[in-house]
Amino acid sequence: MSYDDLMIDVTELSMSAGNSSPQVGVVGLGSMGLGMARSLRTAGYEVGVYDVRHEAALAFAVEGGTAHETVAKLAAVTDVLISVVVNAAQTEAVLFGAGDDGAIDHLAPGSVFVMCSTVDPQWSASLAGTLAERGIHYLDAPISGGAVKAAAGGLTMMTSGSPEAYALANPFLEAMSEAVYRLGDQAGMGSAIKIVNQLLAGVHIAAAAEAMAFGMRCGLSADAIYQVITHSAGNSWMFENRMAHVLSGDYTPQSAVDIFVKDLGLVLDAARPTVFPLPLAAAAHQQFLRASAAGHGREDDSAVIKTFPGIDLPARTEEA
Amino acid sequence: MSYDDLMIDVTELSMSAGNSSPQVGVVGLGSMGLGMARSLRTAGYEVGVYDVRHEAALAFAVEGGTAHETVAKLAAVTDVLISVVVNAAQTEAVLFGAGDDGAIDHLAPGSVFVMCSTVDPQWSASLAGTLAERGIHYLDAPISGGAVKAAAGGLTMMTSGSPEAYALANPFLEAMSEAVYRLGDQAGMGSAIKIVNQLLAGVHIAAAAEAMAFGMRCGLSADAIYQVITHSAGNSWMFENRMAHVLSGDYTPQSAVDIFVKDLGLVLDAARPTVFPLPLAAAAHQQFLRASAAGHGREDDSAVIKTFPGIDLPARTEEA
Repeated sequence: MSYDDLMIDVTELSMSAGNSSPQVGVVGLGSMGLGMARSLRTAGYEVGVYDVRHEAALAFAVEGGTAHETVAKLAAVTDVLISVVVNAAQTEAVLFGAGDDGAIDHLAPGSVFVMCSTVDPQWSASLAGTLAERGIHYLDAPISGGAVKAAAGGLTMMTSGSPEAYALANPFLEAMSEAVYRLGDQAGMGSAIKIVNQLLAGVHIAAAAEAMAFGMRCGLSADAIYQVITHSAGNSWMFENRMAHVLSGDYTPQSAVDIFVKDLGLVLDAARPTVFPLPLAAAAHQQFLRASAAGHGREDDSAVIKTFPGIDLPARTEEA
Repeated sequence: MSYDDLMIDVTELSMSAGNSSPQVGVVGLGSMGLGMARSLRTAGYEVGVYDVRHEAALAFAVEGGTAHETVAKLAAVTDVLISVVVNAAQTEAVLFGAGDDGAIDHLAPGSVFVMCSTVDPQWSASLAGTLAERGIHYLDAPISGGAVKAAAGGLTMMTSGSPEAYALANPFLEAMSEAVYRLGDQAGMGSAIKIVNQLLAGVHIAAAAEAMAFGMRCGLSADAIYQVITHSAGNSWMFENRMAHVLSGDYTPQSAVDIFVKDLGLVLDAARPTVFPLPLAAAAHQQFLRASAAGHGREDDSAVIKTFPGIDLPARTEEA
């Protein structure tokens, strides 16, 4: 469904009773989920929400959304349920809960479950099968872009799923995203490209820290290294973004060291069943483990540079 | 000296006898050195050259340069001698040769030796001391950018050296380069930033290959991976540049696997005396060693992806 199609739907909605239009819900109001729920409201949708922290859902209700007491109650009135929780285990809690508390027993056949966590692609494909047995469509839809972009409808979504799932979910995806990559109808492909991205992001941060630390050890200033490398073939998106934190000496977590302890662990776990070697991802994972073990787990992931000995890192600047 | 200063120099030259202007020479007419010599001629300079392959020097003389039979003869008439050879050993051959064949015995006090190879920063600093004993100035000036940019005056030069060295060499640096980074007066800093760049470039190529191969193993198409990653936070300059070669199945060497066998080896060698750990550089070096050992040493460095098992790489396309 294109944006033009969406415009037509909205027109039809305004001429009809309105209750027949698809209802959207968001589970998980962390920094990403809250921003996505807000983007949906900005686009004109009524948005139902649930969070295990009831106060988060109630705060969103104050803004104009609808808070639900349980996932089950939200699922029962939702056609497209968007799950924005931390990992596969939390996604399973959303769907299967305890007793009949899970969303799977309350989502109507023909509805869509949109899975936005970073997970093992095989697990995602398996989940699609479980939902299909209940007639529930599935969209494998990990997200990228951070909290600021989430709130501005500027996310990147890496998705795959059936045409039926897209048909219902597309207007909502477009409302939340600057870019929606559609990687075919096979569940797991969205998750696969997401972990490929995390592999590169993690290796690039660890490499940026290693190169920056080594250059300083050679006698170069951090500023000079940053200036030259960001204009050279050795540059990466992560070098440019994260080493700016090192220059300002500001390790306030925009994304924490422990996120890459988790995500590179997930990358390595996903590769093992197919017996696929990932030597650089493994080396980078060890660096994040080392940083976390040294007590930097909750600092910005650029703090991985603090594990290198014998260098004087820039102190925190006034404006930071 | 700025480009404006250079313009004034050229004007003064055309009004004077001209012989008092600094004479420039280039040693080593490989793809980089030849392009640099041509850029200097394009900028209006008389250019003397020497190459161990005499036919290369004679071919440049046909274009309008001056070929010399020995390094000694070139050095004797040169104020700024630019050395564009493969490594430290070849640079030593240029300077010290056999008997009195080396440039060092023929360069006049006050002249400048410009060292453009990728070398150990400590070795570069030591060389500066040896030349200083003869009153010869030294510019530590590794280059980046490839043959096409070299021929178009579009190189990046990563330099350090004394004010006296810059005063004489600056007009020639500007003629050859789009960007000249000046990293202070301590010899070795140019070489240090160059190996920091090579560390990142090598790690990024190996990581790009690893991520691309893993994504294909997960069932993604190479085209989809390239499309998403080049628009995501996992991107690097090297991913975007080198994985395009993988997509087109074209491993014609623009820069060969064996260059990174050498350069990452140099990075690791440079770090060892200061007992500095470089785990990602070490892992990437092993990948290039593996690719070279498998017979891909002279292929494009993106051929490091050929060492991953169980994937079908894109075949060479017609236009490639």
